[in-house]
Amino acid sequence: MDLKDLLKEIETYEGKEVTLQGWIRNHRKQKEFGFIDFSDGTCFKHVQLVYDNKLDDFEEIQKIKNGSAITVIGTVVKSEGSGQNYEIKIKDIVLEGDCPEDYPMQPKKHSREFLREQAHLRPRTNLFQAVFRIRSVAAMAIHTYFQERGYIYLHSPLLTGSDGEGAGEMFSVTTQNLDEIAKNKKNDQTKELFNRTLGLTVTGQLEGETFAQSFKKIYTFGPTFRAENSNTKYHANEFWMIEPEIAFCDLDGVMDIEEDCLKYIISYVLEKCKDEMEFLDKFVEHGLIDKLQTAVNSKYTRISHKDVITILKEAEEKGTNWEFKPEYGEDIAKEHERYITEYFGGPVFITNWPKDIKAFYMKQNDDGETVAAVDLEMPGVGELIGGSQREDDYEKLIKRMDELDMDKKDYWWYLDMRKYGSTVHSGFGIGFERLLLYLTGVDNIRDVIPYPRTPGNCDF
Amino acid sequence: MDLKDLLKEIETYEGKEVTLQGWIRNHRKQKEFGFIDFSDGTCFKHVQLVYDNKLDDFEEIQKIKNGSAITVIGTVVKSEGSGQNYEIKIKDIVLEGDCPEDYPMQPKKHSREFLREQAHLRPRTNLFQAVFRIRSVAAMAIHTYFQERGYIYLHSPLLTGSDGEGAGEMFSVTTQNLDEIAKNKKNDQTKELFNRTLGLTVTGQLEGETFAQSFKKIYTFGPTFRAENSNTKYHANEFWMIEPEIAFCDLDGVMDIEEDCLKYIISYVLEKCKDEMEFLDKFVEHGLIDKLQTAVNSKYTRISHKDVITILKEAEEKGTNWEFKPEYGEDIAKEHERYITEYFGGPVFITNWPKDIKAFYMKQNDDGETVAAVDLEMPGVGELIGGSQREDDYEKLIKRMDELDMDKKDYWWYLDMRKYGSTVHSGFGIGFERLLLYLTGVDNIRDVIPYPRTPGNCDF
Repeated sequence: MDLKDLLKEIETYEGKEVTLQGWIRNHRKQKEFGFIDFSDGTCFKHVQLVYDNKLDDFEEIQKIKNGSAITVIGTVVKSEGSGQNYEIKIKDIVLEGDCPEDYPMQPKKHSREFLREQAHLRPRTNLFQAVFRIRSVAAMAIHTYFQERGYIYLHSPLLTGSDGEGAGEMFSVTTQNLDEIAKNKKNDQTKELFNRTLGLTVTGQLEGETFAQSFKKIYTFGPTFRAENSNTKYHANEFWMIEPEIAFCDLDGVMDIEEDCLKYIISYVLEKCKDEMEFLDKFVEHGLIDKLQTAVNSKYTRISHKDVITILKEAEEKGTNWEFKPEYGEDIAKEHERYITEYFGGPVFITNWPKDIKAFYMKQNDDGETVAAVDLEMPGVGELIGGSQREDDYEKLIKRMDELDMDKKDYWWYLDMRKYGSTVHSGFGIGFERLLLYLTGVDNIRDVIPYPRTPGNCDF
Repeated sequence: MDLKDLLKEIETYEGKEVTLQGWIRNHRKQKEFGFIDFSDGTCFKHVQLVYDNKLDDFEEIQKIKNGSAITVIGTVVKSEGSGQNYEIKIKDIVLEGDCPEDYPMQPKKHSREFLREQAHLRPRTNLFQAVFRIRSVAAMAIHTYFQERGYIYLHSPLLTGSDGEGAGEMFSVTTQNLDEIAKNKKNDQTKELFNRTLGLTVTGQLEGETFAQSFKKIYTFGPTFRAENSNTKYHANEFWMIEPEIAFCDLDGVMDIEEDCLKYIISYVLEKCKDEMEFLDKFVEHGLIDKLQTAVNSKYTRISHKDVITILKEAEEKGTNWEFKPEYGEDIAKEHERYITEYFGGPVFITNWPKDIKAFYMKQNDDGETVAAVDLEMPGVGELIGGSQREDDYEKLIKRMDELDMDKKDYWWYLDMRKYGSTVHSGFGIGFERLLLYLTGVDNIRDVIPYPRTPGNCDF
């Protein structure tokens, strides 16, 4: 049986025989006794297996090493030791898979850096048992939230001929052999399977919008890529995004959805991952659970970018020394994000951003200077969700693309959408890994991705 | 409100005023009346809006064109026409987004080929409303099935330095500029962001296995790629795969899971997509619902590859003319798959395949000739799921990789898994699009992918 099912109601198994299959996380041997810290990976908690020298194969069992896979038959008994109420008294044990002494995951403290080099083994540790179960549960929270509310899940394409939102550096995808290009001194596009070199998508939003104009409410949840050479704790070259798009929804409406959605995800994870959360609260981010519960219970402030700058300038007058001077019409820095969430004592939606620092597809406000964009700033983590009302006016969209010198040929299908039955329309994007950093308290994106891809790192 | 919610209990709204937002699929005008076929994309069904010349803006309304986005306020009334029980008598209508006469989605029959060229607009048609809602619901069925059973959802990486299962042609991913390679006559790997050219994954299985050896039960559900130049109805260069991996599970166990999982997905879709299924049954594949219900209620046959060949040879003796002659130790053809499912009158698991036509990681049987692989053959569609018990013996795995002249350096981490606490282990793969062809009765993979990528086709 799965350990998860046993532990859920272990008291009802007292005195009964059970069979478990899993791994030895730690084997402590004494002269007459042995204690095995046992996990099968189906839940965060382990169970203790005990045996004594009355067993015929006592000596054989004592030889079983840390990391070994076993099948164990035993009886559930009240534990006399501290740390657990029940334990399993071994009747029989079968060594399924041995584990040599050079096993890298010996039960001791390992650095995160070392564990990254052992990405195939690190999910056997408590930290990564917690993180990757939360990753899975959070993904399910997202699907459940949107599906229950009638959103259609869209798989937007990853191979792409266009540059998405013009967001920047894309990977090139080719079926040519690079050595042959060098040898033949020719980039021969006729040798490409798609008759041209492709890119890996940076966003599924634009395709998502076309589906929202058919199904009213859709969401994407898939991988996206950036070829940027950023070696920070927050950047990976491959990551997952959630991008909901909603027809007949304006900026206020999309803030309602973002807030509701985020609160739902947090509550879902808090409820389903109690053991994992307690572990992370204790060993990774003190106060994590409090932080998350507060986010669920807060009312999120809504304030314009302009008013934010005013507050930041007032702070300066009162003596705050900004590293980056806040200016109307310009972007805000990390230090400003932090100040604003502290100022309001909770999450803050910053709306109506200067148009020149935002993307072409955002709804142009009547002031001619701002667009109906909104960033959600969370205490302690900064921007977590970016959204906007989309420009639904075909003529304005064309004009903006011309101003930005964009090639409209690549966007004929996107423009069609604003030509044929256009609607008020909004959407947003959540970086899944950013969300996980927030949910787990882990501080490096490399530790919330099973096999992270960062510059120079593509093992496994 | 969403049309879905209205139609769920429209009788309770009789005589009441409702507000809907959506699109005009068809506008039929008469001298004194008008009828609008209205959809908001939240459900398969449409609703009829009616108005007459007693409305002040009767003439204005008559000018509203097919494809336009509207907000409508009206009263739910019993319908006098045929085809619906209730309709909505318009009180007020607001044109949200006009739609010019050159709108390609006029209400008439369009060829599938034409609709592929309009992939951004085709979800506004009945066929693609059905197909892409089923795609979304089937994805949720898969997540629900595995999550409820304690599986961990794993996002396996897409950028990869290795060749997965050696399955074949991979796309290359580079941060070099191909023109510069030609100009400089040099493939300069130092210019690569990852210090080498990468590939796009063909499978997440191997990474999945490492997580199953930590969490016991995991599944992947993500995109995979093949750079092959296949122009068939069944091949796309980008498609989604579901790859569950289960530790402590043998070949019989994995067949149990496959059968249970497939029946669950089919039942889930039949229940949640009744309207869509009825439409597809009527217009796309006659007998579709029957076929699916039969698959849910059948017991799946289990038979070895060898016994299948014997049956095929017997058929030949009795007069069947095979295009491809069945032979022990060799692969079987489409015609054989068809014959076998008809022979047993339902789905068939074919087990224990010749090792030389299967992958290196499959469990070697004691006969030295076969591996513990299993293909699930479904009536009318052929192979739907491929699985196997995995080779858990480190020495045997090494030997097999040597026989196949594989570079073990690339697989050090995979081999580690079989070195440190290895277990009996099985897994399988479902091609999501193949499953959708089966579920929808649609016969071309291009019509179950929102924006399909096939050789030469990467618009949108």
